[in-house]
Amino acid sequence: MTDKTTGVRRRGRRPGGTDTREALLNAAREVFIEQGYDGATVRAIAGRAGVDAAMVNHWFGGKEGLFGEAVLKLPFNPQDVVEILVASPPDLLGDTIVRTFLSRWDASGGGVFTALIRSVASHDEAAAMLRDFFFKFVFKQVIGKFSPDHQDLRATLLATQIVGLGLVRYVARFEPLASADIDTLAAAIAPTLQRYITGSIT
Amino acid sequence: MTDKTTGVRRRGRRPGGTDTREALLNAAREVFIEQGYDGATVRAIAGRAGVDAAMVNHWFGGKEGLFGEAVLKLPFNPQDVVEILVASPPDLLGDTIVRTFLSRWDASGGGVFTALIRSVASHDEAAAMLRDFFFKFVFKQVIGKFSPDHQDLRATLLATQIVGLGLVRYVARFEPLASADIDTLAAAIAPTLQRYITGSIT
Repeated sequence: MTDKTTGVRRRGRRPGGTDTREALLNAAREVFIEQGYDGATVRAIAGRAGVDAAMVNHWFGGKEGLFGEAVLKLPFNPQDVVEILVASPPDLLGDTIVRTFLSRWDASGGGVFTALIRSVASHDEAAAMLRDFFFKFVFKQVIGKFSPDHQDLRATLLATQIVGLGLVRYVARFEPLASADIDTLAAAIAPTLQRYITGSIT
Repeated sequence: MTDKTTGVRRRGRRPGGTDTREALLNAAREVFIEQGYDGATVRAIAGRAGVDAAMVNHWFGGKEGLFGEAVLKLPFNPQDVVEILVASPPDLLGDTIVRTFLSRWDASGGGVFTALIRSVASHDEAAAMLRDFFFKFVFKQVIGKFSPDHQDLRATLLATQIVGLGLVRYVARFEPLASADIDTLAAAIAPTLQRYITGSIT
């Protein structure tokens, strides 16, 4: 599909509108898949999109936000989530994690989570990027601040419960969990996350 | 693809060999997808395969074993697993579940789990059958014997942790969890399962 604006798009800089945002998302998907999370630079992505690198911060708050939205299709900016989590009182962290993830996923419906799981199950690159992202961005900051030892194992244990919760609630839709309110699930699951982050796991 | 034996296969009964086993698996996939778990009868499956219904018990121990292998591609007979679980001392049940599932999945490699997740993410029928199976067969027996209250919610909580564990270990392969030995994972995860089955969840 070509249109009369294509030539212009490839050459010039875009204005700071939603057009720019879409162009960055498309370019980011390509560059992250080609280069991996670490290898992909903001400069390379902006260059591919034909826009100024400052637009990445303007629209996505940085590389991790762009990655979260372009590749993981998260319905929220991961930087915002990390800020909420690291500001939580340590003994409420499990509760904060359940409420933060579920409220954002619930608001977007389950489609994005299904797309993520399908992508991870089908493509080694997606699995590798999901790993990189959770470790290098989300978990490293949360676990690094709160966990006393076994930080990598704790981070992966946290992933088992969060990913499993999303899969059962949004993809497989097991009842009554799929329709349970967030208070009910926070009460049930927060102690699990709390123990994985700060409790005894050996 | 037709071959010279096709006509014979459709008409007569098969001998009790691996040919029969394969024919039952193929027929079961078709009938379970057409009729759902409840609607599919052993008689209908055996009829489709052109074998005696007694062969279902002989090869799979019953309808649920055939379902587990044909549709969920479990690398074990679910009836055997249920028997191990319901025989566990109540206070060791979490530990028994982790060891039973991981030892069987590890022995088969992660491919079957990946296929299951991909299938659940792509097909509503597969998600419905996974739900039916876990509820009506595995969880109903385990939770029904051990759990004091909130049995359906407890069953789905159990599913979040078990499915999430499988996904992170075999599909997304997050380290160090993907390579961790079973003793390490049992120590970390058994208390979660134990609480979901018999502990306080509200």
